[in-house]
Amino acid sequence: MAQLRIALAQVNATVGDLDGNAALIGEWTRRAAAAGAHLVVFPEMALTGYPVEDLALRESFAEASKQTLARLAVQLDEAGCGDIASYVSYLDRDDVGPRDAVAVLHRGKVVATQFKHHLPNYGVFDERRYFKPGQTLDILRIHGLEVGMVICEDIWQEGGPISALGQAGVDLVVAPNASPYERDKDDVRLPLVARRAAEADAPLVYVNLVGGQDDLVFDGDSMVVGADGGLLTRAPQFVEHLAVLDLELPGGAARTDGTVGEFTVSRRTLHAEPLAPYEPTPPPAPAEPLPELAEVWAALVLGLGDYVRKNGFRSVVLGLSGGIDSAVCAALAVDALGADAVHCVSLPSVYSSEHSRSDAQDLAERTGVHFQVQPIADMVTTFTAQLGLTGIAEENVQARCRGVTLMGLSNQHGHLVLATGNKTELAVGYSTIYGDAVGGFAPIKDVPKTLVWELARWRNAAGPGAPIPENSITKPPSAELRPDQVDSDSLPPYELLDRVLDDYVEGDRGYTDLLAAGFAPELVDKVLRMVDAAEYKRRQYPPGTKITFKAFGRDRRLPITNGWREGK
Amino acid sequence: MAQLRIALAQVNATVGDLDGNAALIGEWTRRAAAAGAHLVVFPEMALTGYPVEDLALRESFAEASKQTLARLAVQLDEAGCGDIASYVSYLDRDDVGPRDAVAVLHRGKVVATQFKHHLPNYGVFDERRYFKPGQTLDILRIHGLEVGMVICEDIWQEGGPISALGQAGVDLVVAPNASPYERDKDDVRLPLVARRAAEADAPLVYVNLVGGQDDLVFDGDSMVVGADGGLLTRAPQFVEHLAVLDLELPGGAARTDGTVGEFTVSRRTLHAEPLAPYEPTPPPAPAEPLPELAEVWAALVLGLGDYVRKNGFRSVVLGLSGGIDSAVCAALAVDALGADAVHCVSLPSVYSSEHSRSDAQDLAERTGVHFQVQPIADMVTTFTAQLGLTGIAEENVQARCRGVTLMGLSNQHGHLVLATGNKTELAVGYSTIYGDAVGGFAPIKDVPKTLVWELARWRNAAGPGAPIPENSITKPPSAELRPDQVDSDSLPPYELLDRVLDDYVEGDRGYTDLLAAGFAPELVDKVLRMVDAAEYKRRQYPPGTKITFKAFGRDRRLPITNGWREGK
Repeated sequence: MAQLRIALAQVNATVGDLDGNAALIGEWTRRAAAAGAHLVVFPEMALTGYPVEDLALRESFAEASKQTLARLAVQLDEAGCGDIASYVSYLDRDDVGPRDAVAVLHRGKVVATQFKHHLPNYGVFDERRYFKPGQTLDILRIHGLEVGMVICEDIWQEGGPISALGQAGVDLVVAPNASPYERDKDDVRLPLVARRAAEADAPLVYVNLVGGQDDLVFDGDSMVVGADGGLLTRAPQFVEHLAVLDLELPGGAARTDGTVGEFTVSRRTLHAEPLAPYEPTPPPAPAEPLPELAEVWAALVLGLGDYVRKNGFRSVVLGLSGGIDSAVCAALAVDALGADAVHCVSLPSVYSSEHSRSDAQDLAERTGVHFQVQPIADMVTTFTAQLGLTGIAEENVQARCRGVTLMGLSNQHGHLVLATGNKTELAVGYSTIYGDAVGGFAPIKDVPKTLVWELARWRNAAGPGAPIPENSITKPPSAELRPDQVDSDSLPPYELLDRVLDDYVEGDRGYTDLLAAGFAPELVDKVLRMVDAAEYKRRQYPPGTKITFKAFGRDRRLPITNGWREGK
Repeated sequence: MAQLRIALAQVNATVGDLDGNAALIGEWTRRAAAAGAHLVVFPEMALTGYPVEDLALRESFAEASKQTLARLAVQLDEAGCGDIASYVSYLDRDDVGPRDAVAVLHRGKVVATQFKHHLPNYGVFDERRYFKPGQTLDILRIHGLEVGMVICEDIWQEGGPISALGQAGVDLVVAPNASPYERDKDDVRLPLVARRAAEADAPLVYVNLVGGQDDLVFDGDSMVVGADGGLLTRAPQFVEHLAVLDLELPGGAARTDGTVGEFTVSRRTLHAEPLAPYEPTPPPAPAEPLPELAEVWAALVLGLGDYVRKNGFRSVVLGLSGGIDSAVCAALAVDALGADAVHCVSLPSVYSSEHSRSDAQDLAERTGVHFQVQPIADMVTTFTAQLGLTGIAEENVQARCRGVTLMGLSNQHGHLVLATGNKTELAVGYSTIYGDAVGGFAPIKDVPKTLVWELARWRNAAGPGAPIPENSITKPPSAELRPDQVDSDSLPPYELLDRVLDDYVEGDRGYTDLLAAGFAPELVDKVLRMVDAAEYKRRQYPPGTKITFKAFGRDRRLPITNGWREGK
């Protein structure tokens, strides 16, 4: 048997900020070393942040990544952390091309390097655009134990590096990850990691990134699973966290080198012999994954908060209509940034109901956000009178005057504007381009309307406080762009609409499948036409946090110019 | 020796419009048959249009593509075109996944099928997201000649299918393509096709798509090159065209089947024996590629015109500032759609010069477009007075009032709004989001400022007419958002700025390379900061025609949240 104390450093890296991320890694390595860890693992591309997108192709950035890594190895050693083996993932580049890589830093040097093998090229991922796959496996003997490594997607595919490590013989596998959050993904992770641990016949140390990066939020949820599938520890979601775990492993794995399947295995020894026995620390209690709505709320808060902070903003401004969408956005902003950083604006027109204004006021009082009223009637009249706008044109100009007002306040006072649209209206095009679609970030862009209601009820019940006025939750939704307008004038009931959209947008189901699912042909025709016709609006929409399997953004890339009609 | 009359059907397909494209293919096959052709080749994915993006992953669309192909084969036969071998590229799907495919239709049936092998996954291409590569080569014996086929990228890569066909033995190779236009690409095509023809030891029939599809425009430029590298015919650019060519080929190529390299070759015979000798038609004169500026102008006209037409619009509206950008956009719109479809609006503010108004009026008179004046002063005052906007906020609200006005006219009258921004300002963020960035399409989005001037001078000189007022070309550019403002207050001289941008944006050069190129450090710092900080604006910008190597859009995917600073 051999002991080893491992540390999982679930950190929040910032894309592009090599120096900042290196300092972060330095700080958390020191903490791991102070806790007596022999090995610390950071998430995938923690040094560069993830995803760097086309920065991966820029030679100057890859060079800087390599140089920062080498400097970091020296800095860790000079800081007294040279004895801990630090698994730091970064951007490498060789004759073949850019590499999604992990290096092990020890005593001032890089002692092992490996390149990601399986490169995901679906959904939000374009890794085949960026990286060349690796075919080598570098195994290190650390205190008498053979430690292998893989990176993220390497775990999600059958066969591949994990299987080869199992055949070659390892006592432990570490895996840096940058796995973006989606609802229910955490339910999938544990069985997946367990399967791979069994395949490797060794515990698997899964360390995931945490934090927001444009459309994506990474949920952490790092874990260690034994070869028998047992959960040894689990980190919380959506927060940075250092998990320190003492392992006692059988050791003595067979040590095949050379060619194993399509891989080349090489081994290097840091310390041949096991540690002298020591008193292990009790294992930390595994964190419980958050219940569903709490999890979604936490994802949205982190996605919004990190976008604001990482882009150097100190405040946000948004329109408060008294409706549920803007109320939820305001509540998220308060939870992410504090009420003092949130500026809410009621923008009543001649069609705004009294409750529109009073519900907005109510939210402001409940939450303590900054609040002002900017009536748009005069602005609207100036346009409609001069240009002779009627009907839809008159409705839209109201939304646009609101947009111009919010941008004016943003330009004048430095706030980031939040667009408050939800996924359902973005799907069917029930929003005004350059109107309510205005903003630098859209916190609930990927939240279907029915889930917006659920989240509002949950947030009020969960506390602290009940930020969302009850009336905002219960009243029939309305854009209030003409007298007595309600959403149900133009749209199917949201409960029904969201079910159709779930099948069409997330499920990518065709016409026949939708009919087979029981939806009426006229409903399917209407909804699909609306969704397809709204592609141009989505193309110009601000970014917002992905929480579903298929968000509007890089998940779903459809042409604007498109003659395809389902069911034709 | 054996003769064969081939036809290159350089057509303009519409993405998603299976029935429309099938009808198009039917019509052009009839024309080829009427011209006595024995074989006709259509561009890559002519049946579905290209690129279909995530539609490639939708099962219902792939099914419809396959069914439409089968129906088309029958329809061609029933229309009396069964004897001509029709090379029709489409979307297939099998157990492995979606396929970029080409089928040969003959006498009512599909007689050969092949899947694209090399799948580009760089620049604007994401084909590894969509397709699975093919490993088989189907060679048909047509009138005594062995005819092989490849698809697009198969030509751009060394080795692969062309090389295998050469080894296996073919008398002719046909290649459907969907190769997007870029300046200077036509200079590259001919040597490339010649190289591959030599590798195959057979003439190569290169048929390219023509037409606009969102950001991309396909330039046609189809050609036939002999095994000796000699150009046998060349189609014009940017127009649909049927090129009919009589070939006299040695025949008698060795006929290896089975495994050739990584491919499996199979052969099938339509007609074992050569045709009886006939009098060949004289070869058509090869089209001369357009001179550079004429070529760019034609690309922009087609890109704009097709976006408008294929999306069902009948008119466009744009702001006319009297400046060069909007003048060039107006001229493009007139050339694409006719003056009666173009609505120009002068939107003077209190800061607009007299020449701003008069130059706009001048252009309207030269071109015959619809013209109106909508002063924005009152709109602006309503916002600035109520919200207390000063400085940048006051400048931007003017641009936004213009945007709201154009959208109001669009909503009221059904015009598509054109955004008139150029590549240089989009690069450095010298545009107002939701202001002058407003529009459904941006015709000169990928045109650097210096090229805008060149194009304006060229267009006036080339005729017909001289649509652009001389003053618009010669006066110092200005956004006119504050008194006496000129672009050179905020930006380096455009000749210099465009050179830096060419290296940084298109060349992806880092800080060190830019200094080595001779640019001053302060200039490089300033320009790079501006470019990097403007990513969020570009993310919400309308689509526009790609003409350069790296356009803002799918060519250049950078994160908004980005801590990387060149030269730090």
